[in-house]
Amino acid sequence: MTSTIRPSGRASDQLRPVAIERHYTRHAEGSVLVSFGDTRVLCTASIEDRVPPWLRGKGEGWVTAEYGMLPRATSTRTQREAARGGQGGRTMEIQRLIGRSLRACVNRQALGERVITLDCDVIQADGGTRTAAITGAYVALADAIHLLMQRENLKRNPIVGAVAAVSVGIYKGLPVLDLDYAEDADCDTDMNVVMNDGGGFIEVQGTAEGHAFRRDEMDAMLALAEKGIAELVALQRAALER
Amino acid sequence: MTSTIRPSGRASDQLRPVAIERHYTRHAEGSVLVSFGDTRVLCTASIEDRVPPWLRGKGEGWVTAEYGMLPRATSTRTQREAARGGQGGRTMEIQRLIGRSLRACVNRQALGERVITLDCDVIQADGGTRTAAITGAYVALADAIHLLMQRENLKRNPIVGAVAAVSVGIYKGLPVLDLDYAEDADCDTDMNVVMNDGGGFIEVQGTAEGHAFRRDEMDAMLALAEKGIAELVALQRAALER
Amino acid sequence: MTSTIRPSGRASDQLRPVAIERHYTRHAEGSVLVSFGDTRVLCTASIEDRVPPWLRGKGEGWVTAEYGMLPRATSTRTQREAARGGQGGRTMEIQRLIGRSLRACVNRQALGERVITLDCDVIQADGGTRTAAITGAYVALADAIHLLMQRENLKRNPIVGAVAAVSVGIYKGLPVLDLDYAEDADCDTDMNVVMNDGGGFIEVQGTAEGHAFRRDEMDAMLALAEKGIAELVALQRAALER
Amino acid sequence: MTSTIRPSGRASDQLRPVAIERHYTRHAEGSVLVSFGDTRVLCTASIEDRVPPWLRGKGEGWVTAEYGMLPRATSTRTQREAARGGQGGRTMEIQRLIGRSLRACVNRQALGERVITLDCDVIQADGGTRTAAITGAYVALADAIHLLMQRENLKRNPIVGAVAAVSVGIYKGLPVLDLDYAEDADCDTDMNVVMNDGGGFIEVQGTAEGHAFRRDEMDAMLALAEKGIAELVALQRAALER
Amino acid sequence: MTSTIRPSGRASDQLRPVAIERHYTRHAEGSVLVSFGDTRVLCTASIEDRVPPWLRGKGEGWVTAEYGMLPRATSTRTQREAARGGQGGRTMEIQRLIGRSLRACVNRQALGERVITLDCDVIQADGGTRTAAITGAYVALADAIHLLMQRENLKRNPIVGAVAAVSVGIYKGLPVLDLDYAEDADCDTDMNVVMNDGGGFIEVQGTAEGHAFRRDEMDAMLALAEKGIAELVALQRAALER
Amino acid sequence: MTSTIRPSGRASDQLRPVAIERHYTRHAEGSVLVSFGDTRVLCTASIEDRVPPWLRGKGEGWVTAEYGMLPRATSTRTQREAARGGQGGRTMEIQRLIGRSLRACVNRQALGERVITLDCDVIQADGGTRTAAITGAYVALADAIHLLMQRENLKRNPIVGAVAAVSVGIYKGLPVLDLDYAEDADCDTDMNVVMNDGGGFIEVQGTAEGHAFRRDEMDAMLALAEKGIAELVALQRAALER
Repeated sequence: MTSTIRPSGRASDQLRPVAIERHYTRHAEGSVLVSFGDTRVLCTASIEDRVPPWLRGKGEGWVTAEYGMLPRATSTRTQREAARGGQGGRTMEIQRLIGRSLRACVNRQALGERVITLDCDVIQADGGTRTAAITGAYVALADAIHLLMQRENLKRNPIVGAVAAVSVGIYKGLPVLDLDYAEDADCDTDMNVVMNDGGGFIEVQGTAEGHAFRRDEMDAMLALAEKGIAELVALQRAALER
Repeated sequence: MTSTIRPSGRASDQLRPVAIERHYTRHAEGSVLVSFGDTRVLCTASIEDRVPPWLRGKGEGWVTAEYGMLPRATSTRTQREAARGGQGGRTMEIQRLIGRSLRACVNRQALGERVITLDCDVIQADGGTRTAAITGAYVALADAIHLLMQRENLKRNPIVGAVAAVSVGIYKGLPVLDLDYAEDADCDTDMNVVMNDGGGFIEVQGTAEGHAFRRDEMDAMLALAEKGIAELVALQRAALER
Repeated sequence: MTSTIRPSGRASDQLRPVAIERHYTRHAEGSVLVSFGDTRVLCTASIEDRVPPWLRGKGEGWVTAEYGMLPRATSTRTQREAARGGQGGRTMEIQRLIGRSLRACVNRQALGERVITLDCDVIQADGGTRTAAITGAYVALADAIHLLMQRENLKRNPIVGAVAAVSVGIYKGLPVLDLDYAEDADCDTDMNVVMNDGGGFIEVQGTAEGHAFRRDEMDAMLALAEKGIAELVALQRAALER
Repeated sequence: MTSTIRPSGRASDQLRPVAIERHYTRHAEGSVLVSFGDTRVLCTASIEDRVPPWLRGKGEGWVTAEYGMLPRATSTRTQREAARGGQGGRTMEIQRLIGRSLRACVNRQALGERVITLDCDVIQADGGTRTAAITGAYVALADAIHLLMQRENLKRNPIVGAVAAVSVGIYKGLPVLDLDYAEDADCDTDMNVVMNDGGGFIEVQGTAEGHAFRRDEMDAMLALAEKGIAELVALQRAALER
Repeated sequence: MTSTIRPSGRASDQLRPVAIERHYTRHAEGSVLVSFGDTRVLCTASIEDRVPPWLRGKGEGWVTAEYGMLPRATSTRTQREAARGGQGGRTMEIQRLIGRSLRACVNRQALGERVITLDCDVIQADGGTRTAAITGAYVALADAIHLLMQRENLKRNPIVGAVAAVSVGIYKGLPVLDLDYAEDADCDTDMNVVMNDGGGFIEVQGTAEGHAFRRDEMDAMLALAEKGIAELVALQRAALER
Repeated sequence: MTSTIRPSGRASDQLRPVAIERHYTRHAEGSVLVSFGDTRVLCTASIEDRVPPWLRGKGEGWVTAEYGMLPRATSTRTQREAARGGQGGRTMEIQRLIGRSLRACVNRQALGERVITLDCDVIQADGGTRTAAITGAYVALADAIHLLMQRENLKRNPIVGAVAAVSVGIYKGLPVLDLDYAEDADCDTDMNVVMNDGGGFIEVQGTAEGHAFRRDEMDAMLALAEKGIAELVALQRAALER
């Protein structure tokens, strides 16, 4: 498969270099700096002994996520959401996606009455921040759960499988894997795919940026996503074994 | 195809009764009350002779959407977002989806320096409010553009195709079309699909609510969506010809 | 009494055609679409088994109201209050008026520890939205209370009388009843009057828009209001008997 | 007329002692501390050489008002609105009333393209803060306009008449003038009346707190208001001549 | 020491005339109008039988402060923070300083589970509002605590010492005491100093407005502050003995 | 000087290990990760070709700062300010301090009509985040200005001197330099000192946390600050020469 078309010179089915650095900061129960190329996201997992009001007394826990972007993670400065007085629509959309994705890999009864919050803060952005965030947040979550099992002597591991995510798209007519910013800004279709390590789909969010995409293009993108996520799951596993 | 499994008794590939009532209110350039069964959404299209700051002087227009739910559209009262001090994450996610979907059917150069705002307000909710909103908003948009062409003598019709949307899902193991609230609250997977009248995909948003979905389930859901949207496009066309 | 002066051709003491449609939506305990001519307001009554903090343990209930206007209920689009980040002064003033008016017809001890919220949402505006809202909200409230008495076997009916409202004003020197938008935008004085079915005044809010009004003008306006409200109370009664 | 019924021992048609102190602070163009008994309100008038956006280029000015209550103006501490994140419904309702009342005495063409803001801040509250505010704000406005005429050599005086306000009500069955807090908290009806020095009505806002009020009660209240406002206008005039 | 350099003609180590008027309003447990020359601040102390959430059940109380400026306390009108939707950075900085300063003179165990809120509202500003506020708030606090001891028969007086504050600065090269607005707007360095009656420092906040200040300048400013605060403490004592 | 008293074992006049890593992220004109022991702050400098409204047309620029803390920079999770709806008082106080400090080292005429924003985001907190932020922000600012001079061919270097900051305090009776969190949480006095490379003071903010501090304690703290800042200025210079 040739790749001369991609600005980065990558093959169409090639991920960017991925790095997963655990224990990046010292206070959080899980703390991971994940890089997909130049995209760098700090993912922390925080355990709190409380549940949201609607779960009180039900014997189960909750997993949620918040997403933020440092003002100068981007090529021009983005106004700080705290200074603007609230989170925008894009931020809410992304953090809801991260939260749903990570809840899909946790048995909330086994977790017990606790909240785990995954904070995903983009230190540097170059496309694919939400998929990097999901991929890194899983590792932070696994570290936090591991700590919890050590401390609390849980009977069962609440994690039921790994979760990872990648973007795929149609760039200048070619289905490609893991779009960087240059591709993302100029593609016809952008699709974020979240899957588990059993090959099941957790989220599929595809958007036609230019013209509508055909069914065969969708099939090609899904195949790329399946390949990329299999690689990401292997990288997560390797990181957790270190 | 048997359908005993669905609470409504519908066949798995059967839409709810759909009604599209044009000119529902008198002030808006386009005003449509759309019903998908008991789900009723008022969609208005408003034309304004201004553009957002980032489009000034570029000679093109903008199409955007806002979504709201009357407090008692739901079975228990939902707090009014205006009283709560802002729009929540779900609202923002939905109105961003509606806006992107409708922009996909408009040539913004041909529209000229104008904004068309599609307000989609849910009068009564029974599942599928966002897909009903997109389907109705297209008709309101078409009416508004028609009026604009009459008034302003535009050279080209800015509409490049029809857009409609439907939800599909896996309910008790069965792929089904156009979920109502009883199904939505109890399904394993929920997917919203937006397509144009040429059979192209504009948005695909699938979420595993229970277990992850397999590739073959995804294929079945996409096939149902293609069938349902073809019917919805025909109903839009019939409504516009009345 | 001639009426050639009014844009609608109505006599000076003539209401617009009034329609009261019960059970307009299906979820609310009371749901009424009220029309005063082209002004259409959806009024729902929602019962909740809670009381505000300041009434806890006092054995009495509360009746409150919220008011909203769909963005394109008006001839030019009004910005959505939820998107603007809060309710404006006009909205607050109106919903406080509706709430006080409806509380005046309820015995809060007989209601017991419950909140009834009257949501009045303007679908289409042509003047007099607050008086239509009060008139319709009373019918929605009566339906909700009726349901509550059936369900809960209350000992006493908490409703102590009917409430209705109408606007009166001085238009081009002539005292007139039930101003529509064309009159409202061009009148010297505008007064909203809320009364009960015993002929007692609950609220009188008069504002000189142009020059100050004389005592004899006030007397003429109050007489028109008394006549109009007697007709509205009869229409409410007829609707509730259907 | 006996008065044994009123907590203060006042006759039913007797105002509290009223004081109007001009030039209370030194920066504002008009600055008046007005007292109605123990109710004390600081009213300042500020002139700015700008107009609101909707009046640009129309050659006329604007008069507006803002109202606030110091946290401990009341017998128990009221939360500061700035700390709570915005003005409440009562504040908005009152400042809209003050603004409308004062606009009624100004010729906005003669004022020219300027804004006069009347800030009414309650230093100590004992009932009737909004009527004291209107009465004091008129004097502050008159001082500011006087200064403006001296400075700018205006051709015409923009003030077309004086404005004052008083509350009236039904207290234990008796129509009374100028309610203090003890009466206000325990009355059946409370009505705020704003009039000009020609005996014309500018605003009438009556609310039945307990049972609805009859037409003859309304007439009695209006007569008391006419008497009280005539006295207040004389006091304003005397203060301005000092 | 000559003083020809100061706009007011004061000696470099001379305070403005200071007045401390107790019982300025009648509702608050402590109510003081303090004047430092033309700067006038109303300081009220309010006692509430509650504690903030983080102190529940700890048997100790809290002292906090809020600061506000009436819109026309200043030479041009300042927008009302309640209307702007929240307190700005300067307000928060000042009220945090006042709160810390007053907490430094209270034994919170001896206070018991109560909150005392010091509301400092600037009626007229001419420089030094925060130091006047602290100096006046101490007297209001002393009055409130005195009342509390009378009412509640506390075993110990929770006040452990007096607190006062003054500004010092470098104005045209000369160290000066108690800057007024004309000096403040044109000085090189501005320092606010809070001390107790034992000569101990509670807060020192110095800012170089123009060039950085030298150590010897700092020493001169601290000496001026010590002198001024000794005088202020004597004035507080005299006021409390009246 | 012995140091057995400090939890870290440091001498009383000893800084924590300080690291200054330039070019930490790639988009910002200046990007520095500064560490004071376990405290790590990312400081970016962003240049924008605009000025705030109050500086338009004056030919000078502006330097401002914003401060944030990642939710899990702290030992327990802190709520995200963007999610809470705004910046708190502590954040505003700190970012105002950083802004004033950095403006003190820039000639705003020489900068020209530009804004430089210093974003200081705490990745990990262990006391002294504001002093680390100022020290790092200076280096980021210097890098940004250097780039600007290269790009724009400025006539003069707008930087007039270096700026650094350190905290000092009284810990268990001993004056100490550069408090870490364990000391900060348990000290009697905490003082933040900002100085330039000429030994001038830019800001001094001292707070008695326990008992008031004496003049001789203040002198000892200032001496420690002078020593520490001289070392920090040398480290800044070395980093900029790399």
